Amino acid sequence: MKYEILRILKEKSMEYVSGERLSEILGVSRTAVWKCINELKKEGYVIESVSKKGYKLETSPDILNEFEIGHGLNTSIIGRQIHYFKSIDSTNNYAKKAAQEGCEEGTVIVADAQTSGRGRLGRSWESKEDSGIWMSVVLRPYIAPEDVQIMTLAASVAVVAALKSVAGVDAGIKWPNDIIIGGRKVCGILTEMSTEMDRVNYLVLGIGININQKKEDFPEELRNTAISLKAYMAENNMSVANIKRSDIIKIVLLELEKQYENMKRRNTEEIINKWRENSVTIGRKVKIIYKNVEYEGTAKDVTDDGKLIVHCSDGVTREISSGEVSVRGIMGN
Amino acid sequence: MKYEILRILKEKSMEYVSGERLSEILGVSRTAVWKCINELKKEGYVIESVSKKGYKLETSPDILNEFEIGHGLNTSIIGRQIHYFKSIDSTNNYAKKAAQEGCEEGTVIVADAQTSGRGRLGRSWESKEDSGIWMSVVLRPYIAPEDVQIMTLAASVAVVAALKSVAGVDAGIKWPNDIIIGGRKVCGILTEMSTEMDRVNYLVLGIGININQKKEDFPEELRNTAISLKAYMAENNMSVANIKRSDIIKIVLLELEKQYENMKRRNTEEIINKWRENSVTIGRKVKIIYKNVEYEGTAKDVTDDGKLIVHCSDGVTREISSGEVSVRGIMGN
Repeated sequence: MKYEILRILKEKSMEYVSGERLSEILGVSRTAVWKCINELKKEGYVIESVSKKGYKLETSPDILNEFEIGHGLNTSIIGRQIHYFKSIDSTNNYAKKAAQEGCEEGTVIVADAQTSGRGRLGRSWESKEDSGIWMSVVLRPYIAPEDVQIMTLAASVAVVAALKSVAGVDAGIKWPNDIIIGGRKVCGILTEMSTEMDRVNYLVLGIGININQKKEDFPEELRNTAISLKAYMAENNMSVANIKRSDIIKIVLLELEKQYENMKRRNTEEIINKWRENSVTIGRKVKIIYKNVEYEGTAKDVTDDGKLIVHCSDGVTREISSGEVSVRGIMGN
Repeated sequence: MKYEILRILKEKSMEYVSGERLSEILGVSRTAVWKCINELKKEGYVIESVSKKGYKLETSPDILNEFEIGHGLNTSIIGRQIHYFKSIDSTNNYAKKAAQEGCEEGTVIVADAQTSGRGRLGRSWESKEDSGIWMSVVLRPYIAPEDVQIMTLAASVAVVAALKSVAGVDAGIKWPNDIIIGGRKVCGILTEMSTEMDRVNYLVLGIGININQKKEDFPEELRNTAISLKAYMAENNMSVANIKRSDIIKIVLLELEKQYENMKRRNTEEIINKWRENSVTIGRKVKIIYKNVEYEGTAKDVTDDGKLIVHCSDGVTREISSGEVSVRGIMGN
């Protein structure tokens, strides 16, 4: 019910709404309304209360909860179910368990903090309280395991679109799944899936975006390779006042759904084209590890199913579907 | 403790062991011993009790439990943890949940019955009480998802070895994972895994072997394509008296561990060779579906990583990593 009150206050953002009116609309006592207002304040909402006039929502700070994420989210699959946690071990772990137990396609898990966040290859991922967006999306596409790579690219494209739309920041994509601003990593994507040999049972897209960290919040050894959205914006004298994680999440989910629909119609061209436009890998010198051997070469393009095409210095062109690719000049490589 | 008594009775299989002796060895009262004996009888063990002499195990019928599977199992990884269920939804489902929650590598799930057993591609799989071997093995290989196919072949090889060793029956393998006797399917293997793009989190090998069903136990529409081990043996006038599911399981697990160790050492030659020896697919006319198009051709061989090589009638040689392959003359195709 408190989110019902929040919705009403948001819709009347410039006006006072009386406690009496709220209790009428919701069919509850004025004491109940008052309790909800107090809970909202505790969550961090700034609500002015003036006697005889009522309540007014002053500012909605950068708060995450089911309401903030779901309110105004224009999707039809992704995010129809949202599970928010103040703190969780890892949103991907929770998503995998939920998927295993049959949760709805499009279920989104969001947490303010992860106690054991992970990046690719089992690496740990810093995700302290309120510092960023830590979320996972469960999908159940009817595709073969080898076609999943494209959804990792789609997730990258969605994050780039959201950073541009909400913060006006131009991000780049390092193949396959790192989002880069100013040469440093702002977001990582961890795709996990449960499969049979021929088909995908479910897919979990884990998306971690550094948002609020200050430069000094990152461990010393990461400061040249990691950045947060706001730290980057501050460096570039951009205003960070209106950056809300829930706004970024909404755009990510909306874009992701658009690309997911494209993929289901076997229309991967838009994903690949958008990915190419934002790539910081294509055209660059890269080092790759292919079947346990290291090669140098130039990244040329991406195949329709998301493999990186590399012209190697030994004259052979290789298609890389996974593994390590380092791009010279990016993130210390 | 009842299995401790069972172990002692098995070791003294020709002799009587007195209740007094059992209570001494185990440090419990004679009433406790008597209760355990009764429980064992309820499970189906035939134990003769003669006053002044004691207890003697007459016959061990075809019973499954942790003791019967683990006793005399000469493996070091696979089957060190065994979870037995009288009935379960599906051993693969349980195994996936256990794996997700961090169970030990090599954990084996066995059930006497599955209420929603599944074959590949979500097909249902009949697995009524005591009719067969329904089990799943959890592995955590440090390999890329595309290298998992070989373990499906290894599981097939292990089942063929066990049917030969315990029942003297020559089985064939239809690519990739059906075990065939007398032209009909006796066993299916359902490989499922949880992966990131670059690596396997865990792998579940589900193995279902029809053992005890009579011909008329199979639904009418399956009688030309499915068979049980004992029905086949009866048709061929072989004695089924000594066929115990626990013996078959032990050999399957032992062979599987051997091939798993081979795979971890990147020595897949033995798996491929044994698979080839028993193949009913290689050299045969096959129909395949490759990237949604149907082709006819001849199956020529298997690649080192388990793909089927097919010379198609359009002159092109294709490598099939998954999907449908029908072999003319086998199972009605």
